[in-house]
Amino acid sequence: MVSRFCWPLITVLGLVGLAPGLLGAQEEGGEPALWQTARELRDQALEGTEAYALVRSLTVEVGPRSAGSAGDKAAVRWGQAKFQGMGFDAVRLEPVMVPHWERRREEGAIVAPYPQPMHLCALGGSVATPPEGVEAEVVRVDSLDALEALDPAGVAGKIVFIDVGKMERTPAGSGYGPAVQPRGRGAALAAPLGAVAVLIRSAGSDTNRTPHTGAMRYADGVKKIPAAALSNPDADLLAAQLDGATAEAPVRFRLLLDTVNHPEEESHNVIAEIHGRENPEEVVLIGCHLDSWDLGTGAIDDGAGCAIAMEVGRRIAALPQRPRRTVRVVLFANEEFGLSGARAYGEAHADQLALHRGAVEADLGAGRVYAFRSRVGDAQLPTVQAIAALLQPLGIDYQGNDAGGGADLRPLRQAERPVFDLRQDATYYFDWHHTANDTLDKIEPAAMDQNVAAHAVLVWVAAEVAEGF
Amino acid sequence: MVSRFCWPLITVLGLVGLAPGLLGAQEEGGEPALWQTARELRDQALEGTEAYALVRSLTVEVGPRSAGSAGDKAAVRWGQAKFQGMGFDAVRLEPVMVPHWERRREEGAIVAPYPQPMHLCALGGSVATPPEGVEAEVVRVDSLDALEALDPAGVAGKIVFIDVGKMERTPAGSGYGPAVQPRGRGAALAAPLGAVAVLIRSAGSDTNRTPHTGAMRYADGVKKIPAAALSNPDADLLAAQLDGATAEAPVRFRLLLDTVNHPEEESHNVIAEIHGRENPEEVVLIGCHLDSWDLGTGAIDDGAGCAIAMEVGRRIAALPQRPRRTVRVVLFANEEFGLSGARAYGEAHADQLALHRGAVEADLGAGRVYAFRSRVGDAQLPTVQAIAALLQPLGIDYQGNDAGGGADLRPLRQAERPVFDLRQDATYYFDWHHTANDTLDKIEPAAMDQNVAAHAVLVWVAAEVAEGF
Repeated sequence: MVSRFCWPLITVLGLVGLAPGLLGAQEEGGEPALWQTARELRDQALEGTEAYALVRSLTVEVGPRSAGSAGDKAAVRWGQAKFQGMGFDAVRLEPVMVPHWERRREEGAIVAPYPQPMHLCALGGSVATPPEGVEAEVVRVDSLDALEALDPAGVAGKIVFIDVGKMERTPAGSGYGPAVQPRGRGAALAAPLGAVAVLIRSAGSDTNRTPHTGAMRYADGVKKIPAAALSNPDADLLAAQLDGATAEAPVRFRLLLDTVNHPEEESHNVIAEIHGRENPEEVVLIGCHLDSWDLGTGAIDDGAGCAIAMEVGRRIAALPQRPRRTVRVVLFANEEFGLSGARAYGEAHADQLALHRGAVEADLGAGRVYAFRSRVGDAQLPTVQAIAALLQPLGIDYQGNDAGGGADLRPLRQAERPVFDLRQDATYYFDWHHTANDTLDKIEPAAMDQNVAAHAVLVWVAAEVAEGF
Repeated sequence: MVSRFCWPLITVLGLVGLAPGLLGAQEEGGEPALWQTARELRDQALEGTEAYALVRSLTVEVGPRSAGSAGDKAAVRWGQAKFQGMGFDAVRLEPVMVPHWERRREEGAIVAPYPQPMHLCALGGSVATPPEGVEAEVVRVDSLDALEALDPAGVAGKIVFIDVGKMERTPAGSGYGPAVQPRGRGAALAAPLGAVAVLIRSAGSDTNRTPHTGAMRYADGVKKIPAAALSNPDADLLAAQLDGATAEAPVRFRLLLDTVNHPEEESHNVIAEIHGRENPEEVVLIGCHLDSWDLGTGAIDDGAGCAIAMEVGRRIAALPQRPRRTVRVVLFANEEFGLSGARAYGEAHADQLALHRGAVEADLGAGRVYAFRSRVGDAQLPTVQAIAALLQPLGIDYQGNDAGGGADLRPLRQAERPVFDLRQDATYYFDWHHTANDTLDKIEPAAMDQNVAAHAVLVWVAAEVAEGF
């Protein structure tokens, strides 16, 4: 059902305002109020919303909330309680089994030739080292390809340092893809060569000694070796010592990780609904993920997204009339460590997926939205165009009909349901992402309001327009 | 001997180049080559120096080097070895007794109402907590005055949190003075009121969870209580929980510091000299401090300053002829924790202080120099003016005859000797100052070259001009 659309045309139309014919088409459907309400939702949000207060509350009163932790449970209680005071028609918890990996202690140091302490963190899911740690010579590679090409004789018993270089900083976050590869696969590729541990350069665009964690994966049948990320300055320092190393004076590293893989825990997708007045069985979904990594307070990843989604729901619930379709706000469990919340949602709502008439997830921080993408059928493109025109005064450009949807929307993408992207400016997102620095002070309240304005327009129109997505 | 001078006049003269009459006066002294060499030193430095390589070497091969530590000793060896390859006429170590305080472990957490781990560091010199830590209710004040005004009945047994607000970020670093007061005096003021520990907001302009350490002082006869600095995001978080606290649900904090005050150690001022060809007993000093705090690798504080000073000396030593006066490069021991290197220098050279004919210290990071100040007698102001004219193409403005000199120049200031400031742009300096983030990546090589250019002009002219400072 999805096709590409000529987005420059939409941009041009956006510049001249709502295309009269298209708006007229909506008006013939008897919905002049639809667009007026959309404008009001947009403009009133810019005057100030509760979104910043919500993410402040979550980060101050809950803080770190990695899957399966006490914080995870506290976050579920927090979400449920907040929803219950917001005027929704239904609030419920849907169970999700989540992994429960715990970071207890992590230390590292260059031992030779020039001893220096290192700032590093275990990657999410890493096994522990022996209690006394591992100490070994360091072998450096600059890519996973180079790692795979190494002679095992030169790797056996050593620590592999995968340094693909510092992540590039861009508004779209486009440097993340290349930078993050070693995190997921490094240990699985190094272990068969006989490596005793893997170090990576953090997948982050900052210069802080706050290393970036994130999920890693082991491969079936391959030995599990410990894996940790060095902060960028520490990776630089290790690289500099390696630059000067010789066969006689190699670089040696000591790594100690104490981590625990506990049994799975029950968590929950936290869901609130505004029941549709005409087609309650049809669902427009706005989502985020409620879990965070353990190092920060999860302000930008993804407290901000949850605050945006919740506030959009609250504002639509406060309108004098319910929208045509059901609006469902979903705070997904465990996005970070395996997407089990998304999977559980897909399974619990398998027979309802076809009734999803649009979905968006806010999960790229708290920067202003600057781009809008859709993934809808051709017949719905005029409506997309009308939404794009409403978003343009917010500084948002329509960029085409190739939206990816957020990670938690994967079940809906797989079911070929319509999804949207409201791309946030991620220029600094990957400075703080998955680090201790993911804290409230990184969020500008006015940018949260702009996010609410943009998401409210999209969700409202999708839920109210006569011929939905 | 020091007086104020009309600096706007100098600025105007600077704009039209070297005032011919003044330059003529120098030429009558037979020194046309003086100014030509000064220009060459300046311009050649801009083409590239060894300064960045020096600070890279120091941070990679030594790293943290707080007074009395193994790193301190390694740094002294490093400085001596580097100097010996640089063409100086003499290299020597002058003994300095330094304190030896060691940080071993530091942990903190908000225990109630919303438990969250905190990023904090012990202040330099702080005593340890009991091994199990201290846990107590938090009392907040927003100034030292407010602390002194507290009723002891409300403080006894509690942890005092002194939050004077986040340090303002300015090019001159002017926010530091107000922000740093609680660090030095907080514990001494809180202890008599019965407090069990003191927490301060870091004196730093950043938003990183990298707390800022620095020296604190106890008062004679007053109980020594532990003192730690929270990073700015952690101070924000604690403040936010305090904002919502009630008498029934107060904020409780757990602090554990393991620190050790070892016996004094011997360290050294590391000194290199170019012997003056005509007045070797007269000294022009360029200094820095070789010690750093323990958390970072001491790149900007003060590895950069040492690299600048050493490279300036190396370049002057490489000239075809020795300057008229002796140029002395001094890498001072222990600036950070009591200025014992400066004191030892003043004592060792007490009978020579009057022969110091100019001194400058580079100790405000690695930013470009943007301002020049002098502190000389009126008769020397024309020479200052000529130097200012040479510095102006580097983007450096003369700002008056009220230079402060660096902290290690205090004995020379007290002896009313001429001192100079080449003020570096400190816009970001206090983001990283005294934190783990004080690392090499914060330094731009070209800015180091500009620093060398500026300092070389000043030191060369002071050492060569016929009528010295």
